[in-house]
Amino acid sequence: MIEYRNLRVALLGAGSVGAQVVKLLLQHGDELAQRSGAGLELVGVAVRDLDAPRTADIPKHLLTTNAEELILGADIVVELIGGLEPARSYILQALNSGADVITANKALLATHGPELFEAAEQVGAQLYYEAAVAAAIPIIRPLRDSLAGDRIQRIMGIVNGTTNFILDRMDTAGESLEHALATATELGYAEADPTADIEGYDAAQKAAILASLAFHTTVPIDKVYREGITAVTLDQVEAAKKAGYVVKLLAIAERVTDPATGVEGVSARVYPALIARTHPLATVHGGKNAVFIEAEAAGDLMFYGAGAGGVETASAVLGDLVSAARRHVIGGPGVAESNNANLPILPIDRVITRYQITLSVVDQPGVLAAVATLFSEHDVSIETVQQSVAPLAPAERAGDTELGATLVIGTHQAAEADLSATVLALAASAVVHSVTSVLRVEGNE
Amino acid sequence: MIEYRNLRVALLGAGSVGAQVVKLLLQHGDELAQRSGAGLELVGVAVRDLDAPRTADIPKHLLTTNAEELILGADIVVELIGGLEPARSYILQALNSGADVITANKALLATHGPELFEAAEQVGAQLYYEAAVAAAIPIIRPLRDSLAGDRIQRIMGIVNGTTNFILDRMDTAGESLEHALATATELGYAEADPTADIEGYDAAQKAAILASLAFHTTVPIDKVYREGITAVTLDQVEAAKKAGYVVKLLAIAERVTDPATGVEGVSARVYPALIARTHPLATVHGGKNAVFIEAEAAGDLMFYGAGAGGVETASAVLGDLVSAARRHVIGGPGVAESNNANLPILPIDRVITRYQITLSVVDQPGVLAAVATLFSEHDVSIETVQQSVAPLAPAERAGDTELGATLVIGTHQAAEADLSATVLALAASAVVHSVTSVLRVEGNE
Repeated sequence: MIEYRNLRVALLGAGSVGAQVVKLLLQHGDELAQRSGAGLELVGVAVRDLDAPRTADIPKHLLTTNAEELILGADIVVELIGGLEPARSYILQALNSGADVITANKALLATHGPELFEAAEQVGAQLYYEAAVAAAIPIIRPLRDSLAGDRIQRIMGIVNGTTNFILDRMDTAGESLEHALATATELGYAEADPTADIEGYDAAQKAAILASLAFHTTVPIDKVYREGITAVTLDQVEAAKKAGYVVKLLAIAERVTDPATGVEGVSARVYPALIARTHPLATVHGGKNAVFIEAEAAGDLMFYGAGAGGVETASAVLGDLVSAARRHVIGGPGVAESNNANLPILPIDRVITRYQITLSVVDQPGVLAAVATLFSEHDVSIETVQQSVAPLAPAERAGDTELGATLVIGTHQAAEADLSATVLALAASAVVHSVTSVLRVEGNE
Repeated sequence: MIEYRNLRVALLGAGSVGAQVVKLLLQHGDELAQRSGAGLELVGVAVRDLDAPRTADIPKHLLTTNAEELILGADIVVELIGGLEPARSYILQALNSGADVITANKALLATHGPELFEAAEQVGAQLYYEAAVAAAIPIIRPLRDSLAGDRIQRIMGIVNGTTNFILDRMDTAGESLEHALATATELGYAEADPTADIEGYDAAQKAAILASLAFHTTVPIDKVYREGITAVTLDQVEAAKKAGYVVKLLAIAERVTDPATGVEGVSARVYPALIARTHPLATVHGGKNAVFIEAEAAGDLMFYGAGAGGVETASAVLGDLVSAARRHVIGGPGVAESNNANLPILPIDRVITRYQITLSVVDQPGVLAAVATLFSEHDVSIETVQQSVAPLAPAERAGDTELGATLVIGTHQAAEADLSATVLALAASAVVHSVTSVLRVEGNE
């Protein structure tokens, strides 16, 4: 029987993830010790309410309401309470005392990441956060280590299970956004207040973390462009389906050359976009997550799995725990978070993308020519046009014009600024009744 | 300008992968130094023929035919010559001198892995091999680090691009195996001698490596059960398609409880199997690879990408190079290869799986009952039966019996030993003309 040195592990928070971490840690302690080269002794679990119900049993003597005291003397602190405060203060206390910290707190990392990484580097401690993006899917470590010798060009992630579930229901079951959201709430895929998910805030935090890591550049959350899914209609989803696309909420981190200045920079953005049904991301159904990476040498990679869930997220936390323990056994500093590339972060209007625009137009000769002229005046090249004649909606009937036409126009790649200027010009045009739908198209042609 | 300590990198082999490693290393040297914390100085490239053509330019002064001399004094040795010897001797020489070694040599790892890992551990050196399985797809590091806190239940990998290309052509273009192999050769997906791929030897080596890593148990290549794809017929592929399946060559590493003894062990095996078209592995087309992992806590994960190619494989090699360099900067030993679980390795007949069996039977009353009795006598439970009456092939016509029936039987999970005994009994039965097809079914029901 090998005698292992014991490492003292303090856990902050015993919610759905924390309770599972405790369960697995107590259940598989011997196995984890063998793999780590050190015993992982859970010295306590800090909670707000000692008597709150838990999803897994936690021995009473481990529970405490005094987080600060628990952090004192811990070798490794696992922060699973979420939110900005007191999580930030606890983590800083732990790092300053020399403890390694493991967190799943994406909001905190996207907001105060640089401060935390700086604190860790000052004392030679490590901050691990595999669970902060896409839960159980290993993505932080592959980006930081496996692809360290490569150059990432673009990351497109389905990193929010709630919105993917909703969009998937709209696509596969023909439910409206409201209906699909109700289904998601009923089945536990959406929280009582779904704002953070459906407005894209959660995905934006993950985009900030992925972009920072992939491009070795600090990308603060307020530089992430964000649109949620609340404006996505069933009509859009069904039209996309007919055209061979599916609508997905994508978190995108991209190396972009500013079309105005030629300077290389980073774009981080979140919006619902069309991707081809043949794209690997189109096969990601329900509440699943996936991160698609385009790298210069490695080519296209995809990482797929559960993006939420207590036990799934606990798997990522325990992986980090073994890494932290191994580092304690080995000694020496770990890998510091690198922001040495320090690229400029470009606003959304410098992004190069494609649009699919649906227009309700008057049905008369010369309309297509007029519309096409507006595109070319803004340096946007049209790739496809589909025209269909259909009765106008009552609101759009003007005088005796009872018939209108629908134009679906797909563009080639163009600068976002030119594309949005084109849409404004279309909306103001006399031949256009209304701009029915504007969606970006992502994924290589 | 930061001054980095220089690490001396020796490269053995300048084939399609080696030449790309040189190119990327020279091109992105500064970036890699920033990420590693050390300069990566390529001190030489050992080749057999100084004047052989290369896929990327290598400065003349770096080339040498003297590998032993090059290894002397190197901090990191990258072995990309392949095959067992002299690769094994070179790697042992490098490890014994204290150098870290990076290799993409799956044949060598599957055959002499324990000897090499032992040599590394003796001197505190590291052996990296991310490129040995599924090329650019990060799979070794996620298994060793990210999932270190979890328990792997099963890995199913499409880890051979050649056979996936062939089976995909049969499925999507309706080509025969011979035709699809010819297409693969023509397009560069198959080598002139495709034996290692189509007979499953290449996949078996990868299965041995994955099983060893996932279950912390040394799994030698001769304990891997192996069937190639040469017996797969277009009829099987088309029947699978109709039934909602696709045929894939799977490398499987599984934690199995021996049905005879109740002892937990490991099974490593390679064979063509049916998987449901709704399974994420079914979406892996052409020459792509993917590794599907079922873990106790993390649930289902999939890693997808290019499984071959010079530049793609070079990405994995460079990732290892950065890891090795970081370790040199940090100091101390790295993570030793762990075989501490040391589980027994079970032969194929202890595996629990499902079968789909196609039978040509006589068309008379009571046949299904007779067949069903044979199954139940061997403790195999039938899940589905599809029966169709069809004219018999001329060879199977006996006397005036011109009509026969086809039975397609899907079983529930059963021990492989019972399933194969059932097939033998069926073949010997008077009511069965022939057993037309036997394929295992993988993936959760």
